[in-house]
Amino acid sequence: MSVHFYEQPHRRYNILTGEWILVSPHRTKRPWQGKVEKLNPTKQPAFDENCYLCPGNTRANGEVNPIYKNTFAFTNDFAALISGDKNETLENGLFIAETESGICKVVCFSPNHSLTLPLMTIDAISNVISLWQDEYSALGALEEINHIQIFENKGATMGCSNPHPHGQIWAQQTIPHEVAKKDSHQLAYWNKNKRSILSDYLAQELDADERIILENEYFVALIPYWAVWPYETIIIPKRHLQHIGRLTDLEKQAFAEIIKELTTKYDNLFETSFPYSAGIHQSPTNGNDNEHWHFHMSFYPPLLRSATVKKFMVGYEMFAGPQRDITAEQAANSLRSLPDVHYTLR
Amino acid sequence: MSVHFYEQPHRRYNILTGEWILVSPHRTKRPWQGKVEKLNPTKQPAFDENCYLCPGNTRANGEVNPIYKNTFAFTNDFAALISGDKNETLENGLFIAETESGICKVVCFSPNHSLTLPLMTIDAISNVISLWQDEYSALGALEEINHIQIFENKGATMGCSNPHPHGQIWAQQTIPHEVAKKDSHQLAYWNKNKRSILSDYLAQELDADERIILENEYFVALIPYWAVWPYETIIIPKRHLQHIGRLTDLEKQAFAEIIKELTTKYDNLFETSFPYSAGIHQSPTNGNDNEHWHFHMSFYPPLLRSATVKKFMVGYEMFAGPQRDITAEQAANSLRSLPDVHYTLR
Ligand SMILES: O=P(O)(O)O[C@H]1O[C@H](CO)[C@@H](O)[C@H](O)[C@H]1O
Ligand SMILES: O=P(O)(O)O[C@H]1O[C@H](CO)[C@@H](O)[C@H](O)[C@H]1O
Repeated sequence: MSVHFYEQPHRRYNILTGEWILVSPHRTKRPWQGKVEKLNPTKQPAFDENCYLCPGNTRANGEVNPIYKNTFAFTNDFAALISGDKNETLENGLFIAETESGICKVVCFSPNHSLTLPLMTIDAISNVISLWQDEYSALGALEEINHIQIFENKGATMGCSNPHPHGQIWAQQTIPHEVAKKDSHQLAYWNKNKRSILSDYLAQELDADERIILENEYFVALIPYWAVWPYETIIIPKRHLQHIGRLTDLEKQAFAEIIKELTTKYDNLFETSFPYSAGIHQSPTNGNDNEHWHFHMSFYPPLLRSATVKKFMVGYEMFAGPQRDITAEQAANSLRSLPDVHYTLR
Repeated sequence: MSVHFYEQPHRRYNILTGEWILVSPHRTKRPWQGKVEKLNPTKQPAFDENCYLCPGNTRANGEVNPIYKNTFAFTNDFAALISGDKNETLENGLFIAETESGICKVVCFSPNHSLTLPLMTIDAISNVISLWQDEYSALGALEEINHIQIFENKGATMGCSNPHPHGQIWAQQTIPHEVAKKDSHQLAYWNKNKRSILSDYLAQELDADERIILENEYFVALIPYWAVWPYETIIIPKRHLQHIGRLTDLEKQAFAEIIKELTTKYDNLFETSFPYSAGIHQSPTNGNDNEHWHFHMSFYPPLLRSATVKKFMVGYEMFAGPQRDITAEQAANSLRSLPDVHYTLR
């Protein structure tokens, strides 16, 4: 890439979605007089009797959580999706709607209320991945389920209402828009090249070595060329795996390792429990073989300048498209150079 | 629409973008233990010597604002886009980028630091519309400018760093993604029907009378059938006008009136200065006649339950697609029944 692109406004193309992102590298010196986020509350206790996710506690609907030792999944008591294949369509002129069915689950990562992924052991994170695999396989086997979205909202800034380490799984009948875009771009590339687009992209990234943060035998974590959020990252398996169900035991272990290392770097960046939404995009469970899919896990963290100043995706971003100030390369440099040991343990 | 759709999860189709939104009407009873926003600061003074937008004050780059009496526009001192047609493309395997050029302006709505649109007079809002028209026409005449995004970020929750009443205009060479989607859907409908899709949609909405909030001789404000944000609204001119430059004087007056009335209802909803991003989508200035375009102004406000609890577009929304709990009809009922007089003036 010629040097001047690092200094002038430009757009970068997202090969997975077909969308562009506006990059304004010259703009990082802008002063900030706007909103500052609250710092994360101080250390949590290992058990909180008021937490509806802690083992043995009673939830809002009267159910009692088991005394779980590793992980625990249950159907969301206030689910946005409800099971039951109705398949009704309504087309009344320009009012168009259809029923949607699905299942929403909550996934507790650990019985210990005070932990987060970077502070969990690699074995404990492996247990979380095992649970994701089990859910992906069980939900995916259901006739009415064609897509499974595994995600985590971490921190109050990301709408998370409970600090207990947990994520969610929303499984549904239709293929959501964000997934459909990635499906069609991966398919077009696969049909043309008979290689997954992320295999070729990863090879090019490893060669360029400008945006890589972490690498182990089976996985790479990097800032994608087209990153939207300031410190957005993507974890890509080196093997072309359609979904997390295809991981070998060694790969699962390596996946747990890179999750721990990446989230540790995140916490170390501003010495705070780093808020983000993370999610896994993988093969829909729609009965097709979906060979073109190459699963990956993305992190979308909002913080920009400090533990309290985030990037706002508002006005221009809502009406036109995403915009960022620091380049992907600058963000990668910052994250790469951070220590591997969590700041609270040093 | 058959009654059961109001009670069960369903998806609604956005005729302008071709995307779907997940609606979960049964979910409104969910408790909230998450983040609460700070209430807006108490009343601002009419003049703030530390505000870089107040008349006569000096900005960060040393320039002095004129003693403006109505509105004032200037080029953003920290612009995300810079003028200068470079047209360089970079295609290095799967790394694809191109230069982007443009102009970012700040538009002060009033010299009075303490005002907001609902508290301004109709004449003063008309002056703001006149300024938007002038900027649309002057920027649109430039060879390098093909799209002009007029928008306002209001409130700290929406990343606004200064309470002085103001908006922004980002004019650029390429057509941004959100606009391109609306361009192609409006064009397809126009080619087929030789009527603008929003003319037909508006007729159907007025007939259904379920989502209308305000109507005057020339404009309607309503909750779109496919609304994403809890109290999202759209203002549509009754005449098929491609852009704001086509407004007659009477229409401009009616546009100012409906903006004042709608933003007053917003403030009255939770008796707070209601945060939002608002933007005008209108014909690109790319030299085509763009007959298919029907301009409209949208408001995307984040508040959900109260002055301090907002809807978070995170996890599922980022990785899959938008989701809402209250239906468009419920939101319209709430807004419609609110008083027309601002709560601070009662
Ligand atoms: O230009 P401002 O007001 O400093 O910045 C605000 O609006 C911009 C345009 O929507 C966004 O890119 C910024 O994230 C937001 O903080
Ligand atoms: O389900 P929760 O954690 O209560 O809610 C959170 O995550 C959901 C899924 O991303 C979002 O729809 C909500 O806006 C957010 O507050």
